[in-house]
Amino acid sequence: MDYSKLNGLIPAVIQDADSGEVLMVGFMNDEALARTRESGFATFFSRTRNTLWTKGETSGNKLAVRDVLLDCDEDTVLVKAERLGGGNVCHTGERTCFSRRLDAR
Amino acid sequence: MDYSKLNGLIPAVIQDADSGEVLMVGFMNDEALARTRESGFATFFSRTRNTLWTKGETSGNKLAVRDVLLDCDEDTVLVKAERLGGGNVCHTGERTCFSRRLDAR
Repeated sequence: MDYSKLNGLIPAVIQDADSGEVLMVGFMNDEALARTRESGFATFFSRTRNTLWTKGETSGNKLAVRDVLLDCDEDTVLVKAERLGGGNVCHTGERTCFSRRLDAR
Repeated sequence: MDYSKLNGLIPAVIQDADSGEVLMVGFMNDEALARTRESGFATFFSRTRNTLWTKGETSGNKLAVRDVLLDCDEDTVLVKAERLGGGNVCHTGERTCFSRRLDAR
């Protein structure tokens, strides 16, 4: 993995393994990616809190990892996951963080 | 849009509007997003070449924008697009940049 382009971080795209919906984008450092792979639950590095966090650790809406794909440049991962708990991924209570439309054609 | 977290850039996830496949992740600055919206073709900011580039401008494999969604923090966009040309998005000749598996469960 190439963590050099974003000061030790890579973007991690979370996609619903069943519906294909893109749920959120977070950032991982090498420790967060290792934790994600070991624990089986999507874990990120919080840029604002400067710490690891496992999605759903308080809400219960964890993301169970089904698959981790690497891009051609090795600087981004795509995590296919199953939603646990209530299934709402966004802190606003929506199913996905991408719930607002900027443009439609 | 909040461009402050990555020095003027936001990640842009490109998803196939028909199949739901995640094709690639690039970065946009405000100009690249404006160009994407005006032209209808996904346009990124190249961090290595320090310039805008429209995906497919040489290969012909442009990405025609169908929808642009904004995330809850306004620091990431999800672009749903149709593949033009040969339809291969990755410079390796694959349909998607995410063609390698790191883990499977």
